[in-house]
Amino acid sequence: MDQISYGQYSLVYNALSFVLAAMGAATVFLFLSRSQVSPKYRTAVTVSGIVTFIAAYHYFRIFNSWDAAYSVVNGVVTATGRPFNDAYRYMDWLLTVPLLVTELILVMRLPGNEGSTKASRLALLAVAMVLLGYPGEISHVASTRWMWWCLSMIPFLVIQYELFVGLKASIAAQPPKARGLVSAARYITVVTWLFYPVVFVLPMIGLTGASAEVGVQVGYSIADVLAKAAFGIFIYTIAVRKSEPEAEVVEVEPAALRSLVAR
Amino acid sequence: MDQISYGQYSLVYNALSFVLAAMGAATVFLFLSRSQVSPKYRTAVTVSGIVTFIAAYHYFRIFNSWDAAYSVVNGVVTATGRPFNDAYRYMDWLLTVPLLVTELILVMRLPGNEGSTKASRLALLAVAMVLLGYPGEISHVASTRWMWWCLSMIPFLVIQYELFVGLKASIAAQPPKARGLVSAARYITVVTWLFYPVVFVLPMIGLTGASAEVGVQVGYSIADVLAKAAFGIFIYTIAVRKSEPEAEVVEVEPAALRSLVAR
Repeated sequence: MDQISYGQYSLVYNALSFVLAAMGAATVFLFLSRSQVSPKYRTAVTVSGIVTFIAAYHYFRIFNSWDAAYSVVNGVVTATGRPFNDAYRYMDWLLTVPLLVTELILVMRLPGNEGSTKASRLALLAVAMVLLGYPGEISHVASTRWMWWCLSMIPFLVIQYELFVGLKASIAAQPPKARGLVSAARYITVVTWLFYPVVFVLPMIGLTGASAEVGVQVGYSIADVLAKAAFGIFIYTIAVRKSEPEAEVVEVEPAALRSLVAR
Repeated sequence: MDQISYGQYSLVYNALSFVLAAMGAATVFLFLSRSQVSPKYRTAVTVSGIVTFIAAYHYFRIFNSWDAAYSVVNGVVTATGRPFNDAYRYMDWLLTVPLLVTELILVMRLPGNEGSTKASRLALLAVAMVLLGYPGEISHVASTRWMWWCLSMIPFLVIQYELFVGLKASIAAQPPKARGLVSAARYITVVTWLFYPVVFVLPMIGLTGASAEVGVQVGYSIADVLAKAAFGIFIYTIAVRKSEPEAEVVEVEPAALRSLVAR
């Protein structure tokens, strides 16, 4: 481990704790609030909460791993020799990234088998993207990192193409009051997902030693909060908007209504 | 770390444990009681519980950090050299303060987009207020602390102005039985939030060393219990009051009723 200052150590420590709190809070919010949306959008909200739940678990592990990797006495940070386990992030993404594309497709409610077909294809691409990134992440050789980065970018770009071109007709078919929000969800996906390949290249474009480590940890933390917690709340907002008319209509049996009026 | 007496150490220790218990209790109460209010006020109660949930997490961390920073043997308190992490409070406020203004706006149920517009503006101001306070909090130079205190007070005062002047019309439009409570919620916000800038200046107006540390920790603990747990219960009370009539009265247009029956 490279020499790291107390300020750098604390920045990562507090960022990891912050993300753990945010993921936990988003999970509880989404699980409690799923009853607020109509049953057909409930799975989208449940999946959004599952994503932040899985992320909370991994941030708990990453936080503990960071805490164990260093000891701090009188403001001096020393490496303990215990490993800081980077693989937690990839284990997390392997589960959460396919679910993130699934929650978007679920809240759109595509007709027939279209939803499950699209969700499966996007989920497989997401798994390929994460798996192809990992060999690069654990390498310290810039050329190796670039090679896996390029390979991982192929499924990344295919996903983006699918979201923009492949979903065009489906978005046009959304109810008007939700169309803007669903379209915005695609843009949020693109922008938040772009953080990951950018953070990945930080050690290849001049950041070295502790600065590279801090940049990567804080960068992925910001990306995860936006792509999982904020995105999950956004999916919930779409589900609420799409539930609105169904929640306002009250169905009454004609016989019951007649007897009420006759009173 | 400054020399600290056993009495001072215990006062902070017990205050932190007390707040952890209060936040946990408020969280459980609010989560269990959300089903007692009508669905349209449920999100306000959920968010109130999320705020105390996040605060409980951070008080758990702050308590453990305080515990690890000192060792007590035979009534003698010695610093262990492990850092007491002050940043937890700011990580907490970054998440909870925007949510506190959101729960107030949510329980008011403003028409159309007015609620989300006002909540977004107040939440952004709250984030600015917390971020501008932090560089001062970690400084030991009085002039630096005053500078950031003043900068942080700008969004603080804008929020207070928004709550009092900006919400005037919205409060007048509240149902009569809830109007007084909603108006009181603003006063509670002002009074409880005023604790924070006052506690912040304790080390700048004569308190030094351990007394300053104890004053700040106990002061913020009192402020947090009032601004989050007590305020959350108050929001729940408003939600209960506003739920009362809607649960009993169903308004139907006579013409619509007649045409329904005629079918």
